[in-house]
Amino acid sequence: MHSANIGPELQRLIDLLAKMPGLGPRSAKRAALFLLKKREPVMRPLAFALSDAADKVKACSNCGNWDSIDPCAVCAETSRDPSIVCVVQDVADLWALERAGAHKGRYHVLGGLLSPLDGIGPNELNIGTLLERASSEAVKEIVLALPATVDGQTTAHYLGDQLLSANVAITRLSQGVPVGGELDYLDEGTLSAAMKTRRPA
Amino acid sequence: MHSANIGPELQRLIDLLAKMPGLGPRSAKRAALFLLKKREPVMRPLAFALSDAADKVKACSNCGNWDSIDPCAVCAETSRDPSIVCVVQDVADLWALERAGAHKGRYHVLGGLLSPLDGIGPNELNIGTLLERASSEAVKEIVLALPATVDGQTTAHYLGDQLLSANVAITRLSQGVPVGGELDYLDEGTLSAAMKTRRPA
Repeated sequence: MHSANIGPELQRLIDLLAKMPGLGPRSAKRAALFLLKKREPVMRPLAFALSDAADKVKACSNCGNWDSIDPCAVCAETSRDPSIVCVVQDVADLWALERAGAHKGRYHVLGGLLSPLDGIGPNELNIGTLLERASSEAVKEIVLALPATVDGQTTAHYLGDQLLSANVAITRLSQGVPVGGELDYLDEGTLSAAMKTRRPA
Repeated sequence: MHSANIGPELQRLIDLLAKMPGLGPRSAKRAALFLLKKREPVMRPLAFALSDAADKVKACSNCGNWDSIDPCAVCAETSRDPSIVCVVQDVADLWALERAGAHKGRYHVLGGLLSPLDGIGPNELNIGTLLERASSEAVKEIVLALPATVDGQTTAHYLGDQLLSANVAITRLSQGVPVGGELDYLDEGTLSAAMKTRRPA
């Protein structure tokens, strides 16, 4: 990626941009040139926004969501149902559920999934506070909204075990045919799951 | 794109990331979460690299290439043939020609193309110094390596006129079948051009 004809400041910028998801070495160069053309409207504000967010955005001490206030804006919304806590892998999944308007209760962000191969055990995840929250009076149901992957299901299983002693209902998202999905394009696992859990029409 | 549940510092970061080429609103969110997870190894260095490059990277006063030294590293390379100057639209095209090892002479970066519809006339481009360079003793040939688009060809035509008085040969990149290209997938314009400019085998 390094070229003798690119100055060190520009090369360092390209190398760092190339680490971002969605940008490869080629598109990082294009992004660097774009930014240099938009120094005042984009490049300097982006530099400031990066260091400002790095300073101020922290994990909410209650739910693990990222915000510059603690408790976070989601925890601070008094209109939310405190009896249902939806456990998600990541802030991106919280945003996805909010976008869908799919959940009116509280959230709990694990910050990852159990993954023995990557050395991620229970202590690396935000599980302690989940067990505390689950044992509070107000919480009646915990929805494990974790991905339908091996790591996701392993984590859901582990959390289910840990939450046994708490007096809460434990639920999972249902699996099946995506809304608008053509059967022809679905994998066999999803089709089998949808058939097994079929319901009266 | 704005959500009430995303704090202002994070939202501003996402909005600025979404302005970069190759990142949309969805991938900007993913990038912001990635950066927050890599604050020390990526996020803070990127903030520094952005403001450092914004401060230091300038257009070379000779050729228009971007570098933190002036004249730029390419102009400073004494091994390059000073008699051939290759005119390119943008620094990205200079990098592409360097990657290909296609040109051992000097460069001149216009910083864009003539585009009356976008209000880009000769004064918006780095043309004055090109005319000066063309009239110097050392320069024997100017290669107009501009894109084969309407704006590119308009600009090449304009530069050809302007350079008439200078005592230099003016050349263009040849058009034809790309190396490794299947005829079946080529547009008619390229095929016609390749046929018209056919050469003995």
